[in-house]
Amino acid sequence: MNQKKTAGEKAVEFISDGMTVGLGTGSTVYYTIHKVAELIKSGMKLQCVSTSSSTTKLAQSLGINLVSLNDVDKIDVTIDGADEVDYNLNGIKGGGGALLFEKLVAKNSVKNIWVVDSSKLVNQLGKFPLPVEVVQFALKNLFKKFNDLGYNPEFRMQGNEHYLTDSHNKIIDLHINKIEHPGVLEKSIKEITGVVECGLFIGIADVIIVGTESGIKQINKDREL
Amino acid sequence: MNQKKTAGEKAVEFISDGMTVGLGTGSTVYYTIHKVAELIKSGMKLQCVSTSSSTTKLAQSLGINLVSLNDVDKIDVTIDGADEVDYNLNGIKGGGGALLFEKLVAKNSVKNIWVVDSSKLVNQLGKFPLPVEVVQFALKNLFKKFNDLGYNPEFRMQGNEHYLTDSHNKIIDLHINKIEHPGVLEKSIKEITGVVECGLFIGIADVIIVGTESGIKQINKDREL
Repeated sequence: MNQKKTAGEKAVEFISDGMTVGLGTGSTVYYTIHKVAELIKSGMKLQCVSTSSSTTKLAQSLGINLVSLNDVDKIDVTIDGADEVDYNLNGIKGGGGALLFEKLVAKNSVKNIWVVDSSKLVNQLGKFPLPVEVVQFALKNLFKKFNDLGYNPEFRMQGNEHYLTDSHNKIIDLHINKIEHPGVLEKSIKEITGVVECGLFIGIADVIIVGTESGIKQINKDREL
Repeated sequence: MNQKKTAGEKAVEFISDGMTVGLGTGSTVYYTIHKVAELIKSGMKLQCVSTSSSTTKLAQSLGINLVSLNDVDKIDVTIDGADEVDYNLNGIKGGGGALLFEKLVAKNSVKNIWVVDSSKLVNQLGKFPLPVEVVQFALKNLFKKFNDLGYNPEFRMQGNEHYLTDSHNKIIDLHINKIEHPGVLEKSIKEITGVVECGLFIGIADVIIVGTESGIKQINKDREL
């Protein structure tokens, strides 16, 4: 079974006519976006907000009507992927480099649905490298700082060049391995001068749809603990 | 008496041979930079880090040797201006749009000296609009957020265009008038997704040199309270 496809397509159940929908980025949301295009072709009225230049390209090629985050008051529901999620519905995003726009769209969404395959669900975050978007002027300086903090930083590269984000910044990936207190870490990283955003998404997802070998597993924020 | 000139030139007393010196931005530091060029011509060995494209131009025109923040381990002393300072050595910077680089350089400096004329010294910060550097993708969205928070936001313009920072971001100026808890406000603004940096500089200045009608007034961090 294609876990990504199953999860990605399932998520459109949260979409209804007249909504403003945030479209995430990645290989699982890819299937969501295709399904959204089908809904629109079948007559549903939706306006969508993209989270990256790659999603913009895909959506436009499928005839999806895009608006800018700057032009909407709020987003009803955003469907996005994640690189790692835990059972507290926290996650790491930004493997594809779109963490900033994804976080902006997510924080302006009434409801956030994440779609992942089962390999992304973990007991503790941190094995997936944590992306931090930083201004170019501070790149080496912050690398050194993260190194001193024991975060095992690595420059995000694209060929021989530093990877460039949609906002003209660079990315440093932190190999922390085990993140004990993701909420505390998120705040402490974001507050550093030169950091634009970090890939920890804390308390943002309302529902996680996990594609597994045996079908869909759904984790809800309001579940009984 | 030219208060800016008096204060700006006085500050070079904190510079000695072999130092790495951060050069701020603005009409008072202008005089510091000219004096630094004189020191170098008279044989002092200095390497300098610039905080803005305008300071880079000025320094280069005066033959000052510039290095990047990325290429130095630390800066010995940075001399910068401020738009508003209080007696706790907190301040608002960024009227010239260089808040991000100025803060980065300041936070990597062993000692920070601010040079201002007496009109900048206030009992409470906030009359000077507080600049917040934000990513373009979130510009209107954050304007609305600041408006909802009662911060009286205003887009920074340059002619008919939004002002563009050296890091390709935009600026929103907040007309708060009276800032009760500058340290708390700084943290709460910086933590917003889409905010790159804000112009509150808290606990950064070690010495403020104020040019007054009757000469120099110096405020030191380690003064008796």
